[in-house]
Amino acid sequence: MKLLTLARDLKRRKSREKHRLFVAEGVRAVEELLRSPVTIRGALVAPQLLDAPRGASLAGALRSRTDVQEVAANEFGSAAETESPQGVLAIAEVPERSLASMPDDWTGVLLVLDAVQDPGNVGTILRTAAALGAVATIALPGTVDLWNAKVVRSGMGAHFRHPAFSSTWTELEAFRQRSDTALYAADAAGHAISSIASHPRRIALVVGNEGAGLSAEARARASRTVALTLNPGAESLNVAVATGILLYLLNR
Amino acid sequence: MKLLTLARDLKRRKSREKHRLFVAEGVRAVEELLRSPVTIRGALVAPQLLDAPRGASLAGALRSRTDVQEVAANEFGSAAETESPQGVLAIAEVPERSLASMPDDWTGVLLVLDAVQDPGNVGTILRTAAALGAVATIALPGTVDLWNAKVVRSGMGAHFRHPAFSSTWTELEAFRQRSDTALYAADAAGHAISSIASHPRRIALVVGNEGAGLSAEARARASRTVALTLNPGAESLNVAVATGILLYLLNR
Repeated sequence: MKLLTLARDLKRRKSREKHRLFVAEGVRAVEELLRSPVTIRGALVAPQLLDAPRGASLAGALRSRTDVQEVAANEFGSAAETESPQGVLAIAEVPERSLASMPDDWTGVLLVLDAVQDPGNVGTILRTAAALGAVATIALPGTVDLWNAKVVRSGMGAHFRHPAFSSTWTELEAFRQRSDTALYAADAAGHAISSIASHPRRIALVVGNEGAGLSAEARARASRTVALTLNPGAESLNVAVATGILLYLLNR
Repeated sequence: MKLLTLARDLKRRKSREKHRLFVAEGVRAVEELLRSPVTIRGALVAPQLLDAPRGASLAGALRSRTDVQEVAANEFGSAAETESPQGVLAIAEVPERSLASMPDDWTGVLLVLDAVQDPGNVGTILRTAAALGAVATIALPGTVDLWNAKVVRSGMGAHFRHPAFSSTWTELEAFRQRSDTALYAADAAGHAISSIASHPRRIALVVGNEGAGLSAEARARASRTVALTLNPGAESLNVAVATGILLYLLNR
């Protein structure tokens, strides 16, 4: 398949899942991708990329690594997912990761996204999980596709270093049993996290949907529900901000 | 001026500053506005609002409080700032707040935005500051207008309860002197915040631009630069997430 046709096709989640490929678009994302161990299958470059020295240098770096096809600005626009495309995108392989590939000796926090739906939130959460040292992030059904173009863009390169993958409650529960992992679930009505004196060595931390909060399944399975103490009268925190504070507190 | 003309005009920062008015758009934002003490000057309603019971009930609540004008969907669209308008917006007065109106006995954290530019980030920061009990948030020059429609939308009602206003370095420095307030500045290369044993009773916490970080002015004036400990190899946190973690740590 021509790279342009493939890039257009990869806008659909079904196609990304079938091919196990995703698209990283824009100068910064493609630079991050080149610095990572992720396998690149090809790249598209449009004339506007070469207007700036940084773009021209990126085009050179891509040519030494992969198949680069030059396309017209309007063709590029038909594959791009940004409003003002910078004229570069790369097609790369979704890293093969799963709960089975977790290291045996892990400790810390495994982050679990349970129907988190906004792509910007999920990308920011992955960036946060990578920066704060979560061991991995898993997306349960109902969560936006981790390899959606906007999620990848908001992740600012986190996807290329931090293990992030889809899973199910069944797989997670089997993994928790064999790895002796506690399930914490973030909930505004939970136990104040500052009042918990010590935490288990391995925690799966579930964060729920932006509007509806924790699912009934997460609630039923949680060893503990945990909350951040908010100002009286405050409604709630953004899910990425809440996740960041919880990860920071649980990791030290 | 007709409300429709005024709402269109208020898309411009200059107009918002001249009239000291802003626009809250969408069902949730207008509901929050009605529950707040902010003064409403008028509202526009388009037919699509009345399709759902929640919208019809909101239209009723608005009519009992302010001047409501009904406009066609396309007229509403010309004043709206969302892609799929819900058919309701309210024009309200920017609350009159400044450093001079801070209570004499405040303690805690005064948040300072120094050239934070993304409207979604700034709205999320205001929501976070309100939820975590910052005493106020001030926007220094170079920061996006706090009353920009997208900032108000991302703030999820925080603007209507939490004191947020523009100021300058000169005003801030005079205020700091008379109120004995320390200046902390968030910087990836600063002192690990977890290593600081105790904090002053009053802190102005500066967070900087998404790309460029802390300004030279903030750096020169800071009593202390503070950092969050990140995973080795991690680039950075989103500014709203970093602000949330710092506010949480400084407030307890």
